[in-house]
Amino acid sequence: MAQILNPNTKAQATSPIDRMQTLLADDLSAVETILSTESASPVAMIPDLSHYIVSAGGKRLRPLVTLAAAHAAGGANAATHNLSAAVEFIHTATLLHDDVIDESDLRRGKPAAKAIWGNSASILVGDFLFAQAFTLMVRTGSLEILGILSRASSVIAEGEVHQLSALGRNDLPTEEYLTIIEAKTAALFEASARAGALSSGSETHVEALAHYGKNLGLAFQIVDDALDYGGTESAIGKSVGDDFREGKITLPVIIARRRGSDDDRAFWDRAMMVETQKPDDLAHAIRLIRQTDAAQASLNEARAYAGLAKAALMNLPDSDYKQVLLDLADFCVRREN
Amino acid sequence: MAQILNPNTKAQATSPIDRMQTLLADDLSAVETILSTESASPVAMIPDLSHYIVSAGGKRLRPLVTLAAAHAAGGANAATHNLSAAVEFIHTATLLHDDVIDESDLRRGKPAAKAIWGNSASILVGDFLFAQAFTLMVRTGSLEILGILSRASSVIAEGEVHQLSALGRNDLPTEEYLTIIEAKTAALFEASARAGALSSGSETHVEALAHYGKNLGLAFQIVDDALDYGGTESAIGKSVGDDFREGKITLPVIIARRRGSDDDRAFWDRAMMVETQKPDDLAHAIRLIRQTDAAQASLNEARAYAGLAKAALMNLPDSDYKQVLLDLADFCVRREN
Repeated sequence: MAQILNPNTKAQATSPIDRMQTLLADDLSAVETILSTESASPVAMIPDLSHYIVSAGGKRLRPLVTLAAAHAAGGANAATHNLSAAVEFIHTATLLHDDVIDESDLRRGKPAAKAIWGNSASILVGDFLFAQAFTLMVRTGSLEILGILSRASSVIAEGEVHQLSALGRNDLPTEEYLTIIEAKTAALFEASARAGALSSGSETHVEALAHYGKNLGLAFQIVDDALDYGGTESAIGKSVGDDFREGKITLPVIIARRRGSDDDRAFWDRAMMVETQKPDDLAHAIRLIRQTDAAQASLNEARAYAGLAKAALMNLPDSDYKQVLLDLADFCVRREN
Repeated sequence: MAQILNPNTKAQATSPIDRMQTLLADDLSAVETILSTESASPVAMIPDLSHYIVSAGGKRLRPLVTLAAAHAAGGANAATHNLSAAVEFIHTATLLHDDVIDESDLRRGKPAAKAIWGNSASILVGDFLFAQAFTLMVRTGSLEILGILSRASSVIAEGEVHQLSALGRNDLPTEEYLTIIEAKTAALFEASARAGALSSGSETHVEALAHYGKNLGLAFQIVDDALDYGGTESAIGKSVGDDFREGKITLPVIIARRRGSDDDRAFWDRAMMVETQKPDDLAHAIRLIRQTDAAQASLNEARAYAGLAKAALMNLPDSDYKQVLLDLADFCVRREN
């Protein structure tokens, strides 16, 4: 299936993200300047914490999608740069708040900001960056772009609250899981691609690029959720099990439970309630997910969305920008972490 | 001094806030409809929690200032209503996040939302309302208004982080305290009055009303900080001591410490560090604040800002709207809770 969905991939030394960063180097440099300037403040804790999270290890995936969408639609400009920085700030704000909510002490393998500066600072600097995102969007001069991103920000928060209400709900239907990840993850990718395309000044490919963004986001989140149980690899990465420990019902769990025996279902029903979880449960959960091929089934689902993302770009004229977006869709279902 | 600053006050059965609510009843009703509609969501926890905090006990002080400023400048319209609701949502979002940060379990004498729905829901619903505020502002069709409120939102977060960094800092200069409260409180009153005035379509009295808003906000916060030590009353209200328990350095503490003996300063230096605070310290702190007349001095400072707020409106033509704004400035330095 990966073969079918992946006709453009040749043997390449660099990842599509590296190639996007090279292709969009000038734009990205303008975005980095804005990120740095707009996280400045006379209150030292703000640039300290912002710099730690904004500068540390981020792939700038959403700005890259924004910039590439703008170019694919007609061209990037100063508004695109402000928008790209705004999108990264919104993403960073949600990371800071997620850290507090998830009670995780690690983020991208480093101590979470809250482990260094505390919960209060993480909440407030998240609020600051969120507000700065809107100041940047005002600079685009486009009420339409502001509307797209403010609506997306509401939807993200709705998705996060929905996810919170669904913790431990083992009967969560696949469709409701998809509603949650469409809101909490895909909405920002969709808004990035849509607003990026609009910022070019052309309206021609806006819907196609928005559709690309949404499906890319769905694929991205499903892969993330599969990787939380080690994906289809036998080796277990260091950040495995976060969702499990929080009782977050994700696609691998839904599939494994559906395909399991009555005993397995009894296990899931106990283990996904954090109150009744035992230390050995994660290892057993990973075993069940492997036995039922639930990780592979999740990845197949992600590949389907990656395919939809690529199909959405069918009518766009060929360009380097279109190509990196196509490659990115393939890459996001092949990534190992 | 209250006499001098308060030439317009006659014997009145109702408070200026009641009178504002009556004078602006039609506008306020439109605002309430927006608040209710825009806190709706298919995710039940969002309207449940929003309704609890948005509907419960709020005086709608910021929307009232926004509406009165619009009328005083030329007239209120649909944009003013959306803006007024946006301002209330921003305020509510900061309350929800403050509750988590301050670790207080009560808000306006009722259990804080987080005591019922938890910290995570309070953070996320705050984010949701903040995003909805920007969606509402997009509806005003004014990039200028969006710029004013996004900038104010950044400044509020900066002020909150500044306050966080200043916890327990007994040598906090009065000027730095004023910088903090200007950011965390006065900025939103200033933005409400400024954007409210702009929403009328006239630019004539915008600066005067913005100046009013800022000084009203400063007066309001200083009174709040004095009331946290019981104000100048001998009776101690139920919500006294929150700032003290958190080690928040406010004007009454700054003045009492400055005017106190070496022993008093040693007390403050120990007691304002939450780690070394003892159970009887609050009672002693209140005693010192009374002895040094620090509560009265704080109220005098608040009255000076209320005077500046009123003076800012000097050149506005007389109207019921101007009058309620003048009365509000007097009222906010006379309130008992």
